[in-house]
Amino acid sequence: MSHQVPVELGRRRYHVHVGNGALAEVGRIIADLGAPGPVLVVSDTRVEQAWGQALRRALAPLVDAGQPPPQWLLLPPGEAHKGVEEVARIWDAALDMGADRKLVVVAFGGGVVGDLAGFAAATLLRGVRLVMVPTTLLAQVDSSVGGKTGFNRAQGKNLVGAFHQPSAVIADPDLLATLDDRDYRAGLGEVVKVGAVLDAALFESLTADAQAMAARDPAVVARIVARCCALKAEVVVADEREAGLRQVLNFGHTLGHAIEKLGDYRRHRHGEAVAMGMVAAARIGARLAVSDDGPAQRLAALLGTFGLPVELPKDMAHGDLGAALAFDKKRVGTQVRWILCPRIGTWQARDLSPKAALDALAG
Amino acid sequence: MSHQVPVELGRRRYHVHVGNGALAEVGRIIADLGAPGPVLVVSDTRVEQAWGQALRRALAPLVDAGQPPPQWLLLPPGEAHKGVEEVARIWDAALDMGADRKLVVVAFGGGVVGDLAGFAAATLLRGVRLVMVPTTLLAQVDSSVGGKTGFNRAQGKNLVGAFHQPSAVIADPDLLATLDDRDYRAGLGEVVKVGAVLDAALFESLTADAQAMAARDPAVVARIVARCCALKAEVVVADEREAGLRQVLNFGHTLGHAIEKLGDYRRHRHGEAVAMGMVAAARIGARLAVSDDGPAQRLAALLGTFGLPVELPKDMAHGDLGAALAFDKKRVGTQVRWILCPRIGTWQARDLSPKAALDALAG
Repeated sequence: MSHQVPVELGRRRYHVHVGNGALAEVGRIIADLGAPGPVLVVSDTRVEQAWGQALRRALAPLVDAGQPPPQWLLLPPGEAHKGVEEVARIWDAALDMGADRKLVVVAFGGGVVGDLAGFAAATLLRGVRLVMVPTTLLAQVDSSVGGKTGFNRAQGKNLVGAFHQPSAVIADPDLLATLDDRDYRAGLGEVVKVGAVLDAALFESLTADAQAMAARDPAVVARIVARCCALKAEVVVADEREAGLRQVLNFGHTLGHAIEKLGDYRRHRHGEAVAMGMVAAARIGARLAVSDDGPAQRLAALLGTFGLPVELPKDMAHGDLGAALAFDKKRVGTQVRWILCPRIGTWQARDLSPKAALDALAG
Repeated sequence: MSHQVPVELGRRRYHVHVGNGALAEVGRIIADLGAPGPVLVVSDTRVEQAWGQALRRALAPLVDAGQPPPQWLLLPPGEAHKGVEEVARIWDAALDMGADRKLVVVAFGGGVVGDLAGFAAATLLRGVRLVMVPTTLLAQVDSSVGGKTGFNRAQGKNLVGAFHQPSAVIADPDLLATLDDRDYRAGLGEVVKVGAVLDAALFESLTADAQAMAARDPAVVARIVARCCALKAEVVVADEREAGLRQVLNFGHTLGHAIEKLGDYRRHRHGEAVAMGMVAAARIGARLAVSDDGPAQRLAALLGTFGLPVELPKDMAHGDLGAALAFDKKRVGTQVRWILCPRIGTWQARDLSPKAALDALAG
């Protein structure tokens, strides 16, 4: 059975249902939303193969209650397929169903599926309901909660998007069993991030349970995922539109996005780029006397335990990284906002030009 | 000089600046928004030819204050060019400028330009500022105020969109002087709509001043535009997301959208389709004993004075209209929400299946 983490956003309040076996509850949770209409499941080919049958079983009660059978749209997996073309396929699948405003879009996949299906749901008929069923660690602990949706353009990542809160999130850590090793480890990058800037106790417990996390021990993973969801929910409630506190979640992402872009979104997983970006941001903080060397060293050690990269790729020149940073969404004028880590469990924002930051990093 | 109609939406409060000559104030109004960034003007080739120089002059103070020269993106005019391809051109023009969140998108055109530029502004970097400078009567009295944005898909009109309130609207009736006759008259359809369901006095004054309105008398047009903007602002404030009162503005649009669709968005102007849709809706109301024959007769008479069509095209079969109605955004299940007109200046909502409505119309 799952337990529920509320995301207290007033009229847009919803729950994150976390727990081993929660997938089986998706149909009931949708029915409980009230007045559900037809369901469109957006997924990718890999997820459908592993868990499609289980979700079909979970959705059966809706059909028993008189709804038409859910429609499925399968997208190609991966960050390279996160463009308006994929969004348009979702729009058309929904419109070809004759969708009205009661439609429920179920995003069944990782961060890419969630961002694409979320944007489509935000914009179909100016907004229909969205239920997130994240299947990757990254999506369970981060991207499925909070309402950020969007997609990439040639100029950079997530440059077009919308805020659209889901009506429910169902995070079942059992789904992580079939995740490939690299994707699972990349997700651990975001888990480490949450601890590093928001919760020293979580960081400690990741360090203590590193072996169990790496081995995907179901009980340990479920506990950590639930803690991350609760922290994410608190941050989102405090700052839905990322005017203040929510920017903390960008720790490691400023340089991370630039690394992903220079690798054409194929070379590194998001969590790998964030891992490198976090260590770099911690080092920048140390050079600017925001911290001692502790945070960078502890981050590098823990991320290394999870097999994540911590040094910037040697073939990425600072000049190229600086140019990529110039497209950061959070850039205002020539300054980019960096999240630094004064000590584990805390954060501080600092506006720096790409050059100033990279110069500090070069030491 | 313009006068200001406030749209009291709390943190998203803005003003509609209405008046002959208001175009010259656009640069100052943008400067007054605070912290303006670079400007991207989205327009169409026809509007740019007529009024491009005047807007360039109006924007000059921003350049004098240190901003880069505004960039212009010209789209092909017309409802047939209202798709995601045009939205993507706006996204790319903004991103190629290296836009950050201070970008100001200026929509300089009619309803199509406003809807496209508005949607692009809603979704660029998850939302940048939008200033509406409507150049058609339809856009001045209706579509530029209220935050509805969107575009068409093959399945129907405005099926993808977002709510995104502008930061300012500047409505200068002088711009209507160059509008082609058919577009101007089509806009009168929306003016009549506002009077028909919201303001009997406006309807009376349109009847009394029909000649002056048809002749585009600047003082009369300015007075009517200002009244329509004030009424629209009240409706939007009462019901921003169209959960209740705002649906009144859909009078004539239910069948109007179906007529436009069957004409492939080329045969009829929006306001022409709405004119036919209003008379049909008034007749449906009379057949259902919601009203006597008065509203339909008075509507047909006034719309006829403006040279607008009031009878459904004879070659559009009720079966085809019914099928097109099945894609109405406001459809819920098999029912479509119709706005009826019990007497001029009042309205009533009624859910009817397409067949029931068309049967009533057939008498």
